[in-house]
Amino acid sequence: MTITPERLRLYLVTDDGLTVGRPLADIVLAAVAGGVTIVQLREKRATTRHFVEQARALKAALSASGVPLIINDRIDIALAVGADGVHLGDDDMPASEARRILGKRAIIGISLGGVPENAADAIAQADYVAASPVFATGTKPDAGPALGLDGVRALRRAVPRPLVAIGGINQGNARQIVEAGAHGIAVVSAIMAAADPEAAAARLKDAVEGALRQ
Amino acid sequence: MTITPERLRLYLVTDDGLTVGRPLADIVLAAVAGGVTIVQLREKRATTRHFVEQARALKAALSASGVPLIINDRIDIALAVGADGVHLGDDDMPASEARRILGKRAIIGISLGGVPENAADAIAQADYVAASPVFATGTKPDAGPALGLDGVRALRRAVPRPLVAIGGINQGNARQIVEAGAHGIAVVSAIMAAADPEAAAARLKDAVEGALRQ
Repeated sequence: MTITPERLRLYLVTDDGLTVGRPLADIVLAAVAGGVTIVQLREKRATTRHFVEQARALKAALSASGVPLIINDRIDIALAVGADGVHLGDDDMPASEARRILGKRAIIGISLGGVPENAADAIAQADYVAASPVFATGTKPDAGPALGLDGVRALRRAVPRPLVAIGGINQGNARQIVEAGAHGIAVVSAIMAAADPEAAAARLKDAVEGALRQ
Repeated sequence: MTITPERLRLYLVTDDGLTVGRPLADIVLAAVAGGVTIVQLREKRATTRHFVEQARALKAALSASGVPLIINDRIDIALAVGADGVHLGDDDMPASEARRILGKRAIIGISLGGVPENAADAIAQADYVAASPVFATGTKPDAGPALGLDGVRALRRAVPRPLVAIGGINQGNARQIVEAGAHGIAVVSAIMAAADPEAAAARLKDAVEGALRQ
């Protein structure tokens, strides 16, 4: 499947450590109401059973909105719930394996920590690319060194795929990331930890769209 | 796929915390030379990338022997490497989902901690059942209360599937487990932690076969 650059405008990555007791699906739906265009379920500590239950609940919650559900890392979870795709990092399944298992229609995203020297196979299978991390981040302690805005510019030039940036993005720096060439921004805590996820998403979406209108 | 009771005679479950620097595939192949009839790759801490690499290496190592490779929990890993099946516990994918994704030919095993009251769906999809844990075990700290030999007898009567027992099994108690009705024994540390895995496997196999000859 291909994915349009518009679909990446505001990409929410979940973190169940930031929900402070609120149901995950409630936060996600509020964020979608505020303008989130795509959602990734990321569960790094959950059992498979819990992960599949969360994914099924989110898939059902999102179905009316048309917002795609992407599963972090786990192709088995994506298959079990009929998710729209997977997002793969360096420690996850190779993108070529994921494509073989999931088929042509699945959305496959990959993280890149810089302009790659030997990731042609992965890029060939990827529908979009995430520049990760663009800035230092507290929600992914194993992320590599920050790419910065120059890294975003370099990836946009080098990789012929829709590009989203992730890592330390908030309302204050969203605009410059889009001006550097990203088609959209991906956030975790800027929405997940917000007291009002809908308002937080709306402000981030405004920042992205403001930069695009220039 | 169906699995014969003979295939469960001596079931090795790996634990990469017990290899003390030896390559996992070397230990597994020595154990197969000693009489292991089926192997389960269990990786509870590995990244998906590492897990798939380990699984691919084991699948290749086992191919000449005809010994099936079962993957613990992870259907994505089983699909990626063409493993023979998966083993599912309570925290893993429901067996019905696993069957739908993997198809009829896959071997699906499930763990049962006693005679189940409402596991008919899971048993219907299972090719074999593991009584787990039969005795207290140090290699699976989240295992439930020990079933004991009476638990093995009860499962053998109640569940019409080939039955293997796991948990705290060694050369000293293997015989009584088979006498209680298990078609075979599954071990982790009794082989993985042995200085001579081939000899350890051969002694365990002798104990099982001795009990069966009576």
